[in-house]
Amino acid sequence: MIIMKNIPKPIADLATAFSKLPGVGGKTALRYAYSVVDMQRSDAECFCRCMLAVKDEVKFCKLCGNLTDKDECGICTTRDKSLICVVAYPKDLLAIEKAGYKGVYHVLHGTLSPMDGRGPNELRIKELLSRMGGVSEVIMATNPDVEGEATAMYIARLLTPMGVKVSRIAQGISMGSDIEYADEVTLSRALEARIEIY
Amino acid sequence: MIIMKNIPKPIADLATAFSKLPGVGGKTALRYAYSVVDMQRSDAECFCRCMLAVKDEVKFCKLCGNLTDKDECGICTTRDKSLICVVAYPKDLLAIEKAGYKGVYHVLHGTLSPMDGRGPNELRIKELLSRMGGVSEVIMATNPDVEGEATAMYIARLLTPMGVKVSRIAQGISMGSDIEYADEVTLSRALEARIEIY
Repeated sequence: MIIMKNIPKPIADLATAFSKLPGVGGKTALRYAYSVVDMQRSDAECFCRCMLAVKDEVKFCKLCGNLTDKDECGICTTRDKSLICVVAYPKDLLAIEKAGYKGVYHVLHGTLSPMDGRGPNELRIKELLSRMGGVSEVIMATNPDVEGEATAMYIARLLTPMGVKVSRIAQGISMGSDIEYADEVTLSRALEARIEIY
Repeated sequence: MIIMKNIPKPIADLATAFSKLPGVGGKTALRYAYSVVDMQRSDAECFCRCMLAVKDEVKFCKLCGNLTDKDECGICTTRDKSLICVVAYPKDLLAIEKAGYKGVYHVLHGTLSPMDGRGPNELRIKELLSRMGGVSEVIMATNPDVEGEATAMYIARLLTPMGVKVSRIAQGISMGSDIEYADEVTLSRALEARIEIY
């Protein structure tokens, strides 16, 4: 809770609410709260309506688990379903989408994490298995960290016996980065996965 | 307006609302909007209540123009009124307050800016003049830019004939900064305003 002397309580309360947004500290939250004072009341009302609309209208696509305001998301309704890209969160889907991917997705809504009590039943893995009819390839696009790798391996082990090809997005040095500062795990994977040129 | 393919309309609308906050670009706004999806509905409702409370309950202190939820702000009701610090905005007041200032304030709600159509009548200058009974000193704490300097000079010219001492916060190099990178105007003012030590 943000309490500061000589700040009116309504502003301190609003700053506390803003500070719950990701990456917003006390100082930024207070700046946002002060900006609301200068806002038109109609704009503030519009803000509130938008916020509650997200809570009331946004749900998960019953097929892929992406966020949507319909029963099935726009991606599932329009695209070829033989290629599925598996991601942990809807935000990851957006990033892959920007990279020009043209297949459909499956959003797990998390990664395996025994420490946080997230086992296979907490993720949308059963739903993924039930979608395997007519699928030629599943691309695992979870983060390249311990949990993401474990989740990718776990799902690959389930799908491969079903005759589905399972792939993993490549790991290596990122565009515009500096080899001098690349960590050793990344570099060793980049060396292993080297491809012939010319 | 934030429009992106495959983002549900309620989320895009909320991101557009967030992008009106100071310093929030499209990417950050979208991040905030996605975080609302994971928020409890009760938290979202609380957020909205806080926001409308700011619009409904926060007003200007009738004496100094600071933000308050009462008729007179906490600073005006408790402190000695013979020393007045003049600031442009309530945010500036907070900064001075943190520096340990113990007098009262006067918030102009802007600076003189003929370009933007802000003349003396748009600022709370008349209200400042009416507070001069029993005042020993007025400190001008407007920003050290063209508009802030002009506003400070304008008010000083009005107050000095009334027998009030008018001062300006010192300009010079800031703590922890580097003389090598200080601009020439700041350094020349720091040299002019040098003080004897030892």
